[in-house]
Amino acid sequence: MKTPIACLTPSLLIGERSIIATLSCAPMPATIFHDPPRFPRGFRCASRLIGLKSEGKDLSLFVSDVDAAAAALFTLNHFPGAPVIVGRETIRRGCLRGIVVNSKVSNVATGHHGLEDVRRMAKAAAEEIGTSADRMLVSSTGVIGVRLPIEKIEAGLRGMAGELQSDPLVGAAGIMTTDTHPKALSASVGNATITWVAKGSGMIEPAMATMLAYVFTDARIETETLRRMLVDAARLSFNMLSVDTDTSTSDTCAILANGLAGDVPENLFQETLNTGCIRMTEILARDGEGATHLIRATVRDAASEEEARKVAKSLVNSPLVKTMVHGADPNVGRLLMAVGKCFDCTIQPGATDAWINGHQVVRGGSRLDFDDSTVRQALREEVVDLDVSLGVGKASATAYGCDLTKGYIEENAAYYSS
Amino acid sequence: MKTPIACLTPSLLIGERSIIATLSCAPMPATIFHDPPRFPRGFRCASRLIGLKSEGKDLSLFVSDVDAAAAALFTLNHFPGAPVIVGRETIRRGCLRGIVVNSKVSNVATGHHGLEDVRRMAKAAAEEIGTSADRMLVSSTGVIGVRLPIEKIEAGLRGMAGELQSDPLVGAAGIMTTDTHPKALSASVGNATITWVAKGSGMIEPAMATMLAYVFTDARIETETLRRMLVDAARLSFNMLSVDTDTSTSDTCAILANGLAGDVPENLFQETLNTGCIRMTEILARDGEGATHLIRATVRDAASEEEARKVAKSLVNSPLVKTMVHGADPNVGRLLMAVGKCFDCTIQPGATDAWINGHQVVRGGSRLDFDDSTVRQALREEVVDLDVSLGVGKASATAYGCDLTKGYIEENAAYYSS
Repeated sequence: MKTPIACLTPSLLIGERSIIATLSCAPMPATIFHDPPRFPRGFRCASRLIGLKSEGKDLSLFVSDVDAAAAALFTLNHFPGAPVIVGRETIRRGCLRGIVVNSKVSNVATGHHGLEDVRRMAKAAAEEIGTSADRMLVSSTGVIGVRLPIEKIEAGLRGMAGELQSDPLVGAAGIMTTDTHPKALSASVGNATITWVAKGSGMIEPAMATMLAYVFTDARIETETLRRMLVDAARLSFNMLSVDTDTSTSDTCAILANGLAGDVPENLFQETLNTGCIRMTEILARDGEGATHLIRATVRDAASEEEARKVAKSLVNSPLVKTMVHGADPNVGRLLMAVGKCFDCTIQPGATDAWINGHQVVRGGSRLDFDDSTVRQALREEVVDLDVSLGVGKASATAYGCDLTKGYIEENAAYYSS
Repeated sequence: MKTPIACLTPSLLIGERSIIATLSCAPMPATIFHDPPRFPRGFRCASRLIGLKSEGKDLSLFVSDVDAAAAALFTLNHFPGAPVIVGRETIRRGCLRGIVVNSKVSNVATGHHGLEDVRRMAKAAAEEIGTSADRMLVSSTGVIGVRLPIEKIEAGLRGMAGELQSDPLVGAAGIMTTDTHPKALSASVGNATITWVAKGSGMIEPAMATMLAYVFTDARIETETLRRMLVDAARLSFNMLSVDTDTSTSDTCAILANGLAGDVPENLFQETLNTGCIRMTEILARDGEGATHLIRATVRDAASEEEARKVAKSLVNSPLVKTMVHGADPNVGRLLMAVGKCFDCTIQPGATDAWINGHQVVRGGSRLDFDDSTVRQALREEVVDLDVSLGVGKASATAYGCDLTKGYIEENAAYYSS
């Protein structure tokens, strides 16, 4: 399960079609990700195994040496976990010193006990690093409906401040659930650094931020600007990710800016933030439960961005498209089916074209007489780009997903019991 | 694949919890389905293997001895198959003599050739039974984007009129794709009979009518009334069925009333029509691709019927709920997740209760401390009823689905190639 994958080297992660190569087509500056990833000035982390899981790490602490401006986005699910309910209060102050996260138990559907447990967890972490509980963001991820073993977590936090160090992958390890590898990225932007730490990898179809994704920077940015920039980045990245159409009750996307590197031009920061969030989204999609392919669906020439987003999501969400990619089976009519089931979008069958990894398979709403073996080969690539032109307007959007495999069934038919 | 299942005896099909037993709770008269099913007066059918498939039957003809009033509902997919495009014209006249259906190739995304092929197929069938092409409804089901072998179908139809007989299961056999058994039902209503013939079993999440479902009756009902009654029945049945969230480009629900049995009280006819459509929906859901369970999600006490329908659909569509049922894994927080992701519905977490086959698992939005092994056992039953009370209103709705298994992946990762 925990195959060590060099998630930071795209040519290793993604095979021959590197993400960077594709991203470079977009109008963004060439962002170079650090290898290995590192933290911005003043950020450190630690993780421990405290017995929630049987192996790996299950508790992570992320800390800024000084107070940081902070913003966060939370799941829109009507049953938010207790950490989300408390987190919404905490983030209102716009200032954090750190984040404490446990994996294995999500503290959702746990009533008033759950809320108390979050406050105890924040307090224990705050005492450990010498701040107040209202400056700690708490996240929990894992099974729903089970009470948090809070005493174990309180005991587990003791002494963690002494273990804080500078490798973000250490913190990434403690927040994993069914992820097969820890996920962290970092990049320079002017004199500052941005670091992304995240986990997936099922129950992912956000409407606003899901999964756990934390962004740390030493750029100086005020809270309101930070929030606006996070919303912009999430719109293009985490909110266009879908592993299985299900929306988590817990998950959270937060950004902390501690200002230690001073000012950075806002547009440059936004571009780098977007690039890293999209890149992390691709890594999360590729590591979706049971996945063997990253599916990237780009819809162009749509009547509006909203419609382009809907159609792109419909493509990555369709079980029949997902299994087609999994089986490298060029049953390309399924692309039209998935476009066509967006009932409230502007679709003109005769204007619709489609490509699979650059090979045109549909023209004017009809299947082309393409070479089967070429398209089969294209579907076998680790990254499968589905491009659809609707031919009705100028808007475009990209959604990120993965194939549907027996591995997904295996992981989810016994998640609670495992 | 073609395990002979006695689909007409609920106690055999559904195990210990018979559908009839459950349906009898609803305010409907106890409909007794005939065993074996039979046709109303004046209806007959035939099916043949003409080489589209390698075994079984692949061409069916359904015929009324006299012109019948007719209505139909078609997929809302923006890429309707050629038979749907032509069928919409045909049904406008409100009168049919028969239906001709091939399986294996769906004649979708085939351009103007596809439309010509439908007209040729209607003409060949009409000549065979001695009527005009505009009184034949054509359906095709199977792979998308492949041209219909129309000469083979024209040749295959020759002489079929001589084979017409009275067992609806014979016609049901020729319209199967990945269905594991032919599906037909019949019931008496006053002096008349209603017969249902249908096929599933993937790409099923209708917004209006999908799969192929044909209803035949000898009651005398005029076209407009027939259409209204079919819409009413589909709202409660076929439109609440989802195997995989994907919406077919081809499929069709039609009703023919040849009047040979005279008048039937309209409310009685509607009730029996609803009961049979719901029953057929359950049979289709249970035979969803790879399915081992029928999932029936009933949402009560919702703010509106529309919201109840949305939440019920969300439950049967959630891959995590479907895999929970498949694995008999009482990870009941997933029920709340699936309810909670209906962002635009009125949900009050503290008012939400949930039951699995009668065992309460959630009260006031929190997981109850239930006996795991009891709920595990309940999830192992062939029919799994998920009941949710939203506690915010008076409306209710039921959706029908199935579990998600490795069988679904197997069937769909190589559908085109098989």
